[in-house]
Amino acid sequence: MKHTKIKDLLNSTKPIDDVIVKGWVRTFRNNQFLAINDGSVIHNIQAVIDFENTSADTLKRLTTSAAVLVKGNLTESQGAGQKHEIQVKHLEILGDSDAEKYPIQLKNKPSLEFLRENAHLRVRTNAFGAIMRVRSVLSFAIHQYFQEKGFVYVNTPIITGSDAEGAGEMFHVTSLPINDAPKNEEGAVDYKQDFFGKETNLTVSGQLEAETYAMALGQVYTFGPTFRAENSNTSRHLAEFWMVEPEVAFNDLDANMDLAEDFIQYVIKYALERCEDDLKFLDQRLTDEEKTKPMAERSEMSLLAKLNFVLENNFKRVSYTEAIEILKNSKPNKNKKFNYIIEEWGADLQSEHERFLVEKHFKCPVILFDYPAKIKAFYMRLNDDAPQDRQTVRAMDILFPGIGEIVGGSQREERLEVLQQKIADLGIDEKELWWYLDTRRFGTAVHSGFGLGFERLVLFVTGMGNIRDVIPFPRTPQNAEF
Amino acid sequence: MKHTKIKDLLNSTKPIDDVIVKGWVRTFRNNQFLAINDGSVIHNIQAVIDFENTSADTLKRLTTSAAVLVKGNLTESQGAGQKHEIQVKHLEILGDSDAEKYPIQLKNKPSLEFLRENAHLRVRTNAFGAIMRVRSVLSFAIHQYFQEKGFVYVNTPIITGSDAEGAGEMFHVTSLPINDAPKNEEGAVDYKQDFFGKETNLTVSGQLEAETYAMALGQVYTFGPTFRAENSNTSRHLAEFWMVEPEVAFNDLDANMDLAEDFIQYVIKYALERCEDDLKFLDQRLTDEEKTKPMAERSEMSLLAKLNFVLENNFKRVSYTEAIEILKNSKPNKNKKFNYIIEEWGADLQSEHERFLVEKHFKCPVILFDYPAKIKAFYMRLNDDAPQDRQTVRAMDILFPGIGEIVGGSQREERLEVLQQKIADLGIDEKELWWYLDTRRFGTAVHSGFGLGFERLVLFVTGMGNIRDVIPFPRTPQNAEF
Repeated sequence: MKHTKIKDLLNSTKPIDDVIVKGWVRTFRNNQFLAINDGSVIHNIQAVIDFENTSADTLKRLTTSAAVLVKGNLTESQGAGQKHEIQVKHLEILGDSDAEKYPIQLKNKPSLEFLRENAHLRVRTNAFGAIMRVRSVLSFAIHQYFQEKGFVYVNTPIITGSDAEGAGEMFHVTSLPINDAPKNEEGAVDYKQDFFGKETNLTVSGQLEAETYAMALGQVYTFGPTFRAENSNTSRHLAEFWMVEPEVAFNDLDANMDLAEDFIQYVIKYALERCEDDLKFLDQRLTDEEKTKPMAERSEMSLLAKLNFVLENNFKRVSYTEAIEILKNSKPNKNKKFNYIIEEWGADLQSEHERFLVEKHFKCPVILFDYPAKIKAFYMRLNDDAPQDRQTVRAMDILFPGIGEIVGGSQREERLEVLQQKIADLGIDEKELWWYLDTRRFGTAVHSGFGLGFERLVLFVTGMGNIRDVIPFPRTPQNAEF
Repeated sequence: MKHTKIKDLLNSTKPIDDVIVKGWVRTFRNNQFLAINDGSVIHNIQAVIDFENTSADTLKRLTTSAAVLVKGNLTESQGAGQKHEIQVKHLEILGDSDAEKYPIQLKNKPSLEFLRENAHLRVRTNAFGAIMRVRSVLSFAIHQYFQEKGFVYVNTPIITGSDAEGAGEMFHVTSLPINDAPKNEEGAVDYKQDFFGKETNLTVSGQLEAETYAMALGQVYTFGPTFRAENSNTSRHLAEFWMVEPEVAFNDLDANMDLAEDFIQYVIKYALERCEDDLKFLDQRLTDEEKTKPMAERSEMSLLAKLNFVLENNFKRVSYTEAIEILKNSKPNKNKKFNYIIEEWGADLQSEHERFLVEKHFKCPVILFDYPAKIKAFYMRLNDDAPQDRQTVRAMDILFPGIGEIVGGSQREERLEVLQQKIADLGIDEKELWWYLDTRRFGTAVHSGFGLGFERLVLFVTGMGNIRDVIPFPRTPQNAEF
């Protein structure tokens, strides 16, 4: 006989005889009440053991994380706290778990840092099970959103021969022996002998390749891993993270902002509908965590309230120029509370400024647009109407409370000559980007896109505080365990 | 006014006034009939130009791949070949395409190899547009299949500190300068100074990490890029490819085979239903290609017939031992036509043997199982009942006509001591795999999983002959362009 998932049993509307459950022990109380979880749902099922007819040896082995099989009748529960329980007729221990050695002792309230060091086991806790189920559902929501709209999913390359992506420091990829690589006549590494016959890196963005596909298929999106070799040891940075990058032919910046806002609202709504139990648990977890903080640092809204707030309110759209005025006249700027005082137009916004705008000034998600050309990437479209000394590009960043930048996007520079000039100004060899420039040479058109850092979205939706807790095996400076 | 996708216009059941289309010119005939494609569907829409009232200069610029906007009335077409057409009232050229310089001249029948060198533009052809749409739909079908069944999508790490995955040669990942890396006291590379503080590589499989998640969440799957630094310059190998790896707690090998078969049939059926036009086109493409081959080499079935055949027939399940008997007694073995003659039990099967079994002997997809332990990976479950000199493991490979191995999987060795012995026999330091062994230490249970090479599936479904033609920007020895 096959076993049944706990999720299905808990959803049952009537008693069922002779069900089989397979899962792992969470707790065992009073030599009688066995809480079993199988990962299908956050809730455990209570199995009532006939302890008088079970050997003491077997009862002793019902320790946290032991794998068990129970067979019995699913009945309405007499006790409080659960609707159903199983009256166990048959119990098997499939795999023991030595209570002395099992690393995660919930009684001791293991820290999040300790759980990170045991990332292979932390997913056996309620919180991490919930986080990873929510992450999975959000991933699917992303695919479903774009597929419903007729977007084509494009797998852009992970290993790239192009070093002009410009989004950050890159990791080298090589099959040559490090410190013993063959040399060419000039004494430099002879990359002709490397696997790809050239220097290669891990991608920082699939955008440039996605653009070539948008100019053929119209609407495309990527969703894959990207990399930054930057020594950013913060709660918001990973060296390896997943990014979603839609790219749409004929979309201008306004349409791009509309798409991003609609997209984010869709996936959050999807998670709210499909992950009710997990999000309720995470909402309570955050509430409990907040209680340990000083009053002034506590969030004004619960997790679920925050998620609903994002669905019910339009994102505030503010130009960079307006934002600078707001910041210049803000209290923390005048009182020199900011680490970086905003003195003039052209300043790059720091995290503290973004947080002020989102969390103190507007108190809602904010889309900043039309940034100074100087502080943004070469492929962004130059605004024609800006004054010569205040050139701006059609860039946009979406800022979220508690998260900061969650989306960065732009309308792309579609004019060949303008783009060539920008590339030349940066000192990039045009030949490096011959294929990218071809999209402007042959049938160029207005187009736009953005990148959403997937883990930042998961961070926001789960209410966790550290990005290392929303990806199964985080990659950060000095850490590539597992 | 917003533009409408060509797909929606072609599906319209009635005339519509004043529609706007934006797309790229495919052909322009008789100074009048403009075929426009926007990537939403394989078909073009025919726009009828009022050439008498259009300047000669504009007409000249209607070259292949020029980006255009047309506005006009959608009417029933008088001509043969299409149901609808647009009577153009307004025409704009958004982006020119110099006919002399545009690389893809369809008149000259560009080779697939030439198109690979122009991978950024090949997607503007019918065949590659179709392939990439089918690829996208297959990706979504994979997610939908697992999500419907309650599997959790897990993103296992791409950069791995573990070199015990055992599936093939790995690429090194480093932020150190190659040939100028710091050295430790022994004179070797001082990886403590590398980004992750240790030697790291690109993953060859997410299986081991996925197993840790299956032992908490029950049913999980990965779908992400994997890498092989092997110098395999064949039509079936890529250095970077996408792999799907489900892993299920409490599944034995039979359940694993059932899952794999059901899964493959589901995704192929999904593509047949959603990509009718694209697959019809690819079916015809293959038929045309087959005609150029000698009779004896032609496929007996068309593409669509092959896809339906897979849906309608169970995969033949054959033990390795049975397969060896069949091969030993086969004509090509007796006549020494095989390059590797099968002489005895224990031989590793080569591609020629697999093809014989699938294409000549059984003439259907085949699942081979229970392979000799010696030729399979350490983590596969040892069969208890096999004779000592013929030890087998609960491995399975699914072989497809024309493709060869499309799936490799196994029931995993769940017994700690057996696994430790195997690891020791291989000379792997147990400490390297401490976290993997933990799954056997704490609540171990029977579990199984498999890996499906996504590009091989796309190859099969699209009927293409070279794996480089079913991924946007292929990575192969000496090639990492774009």
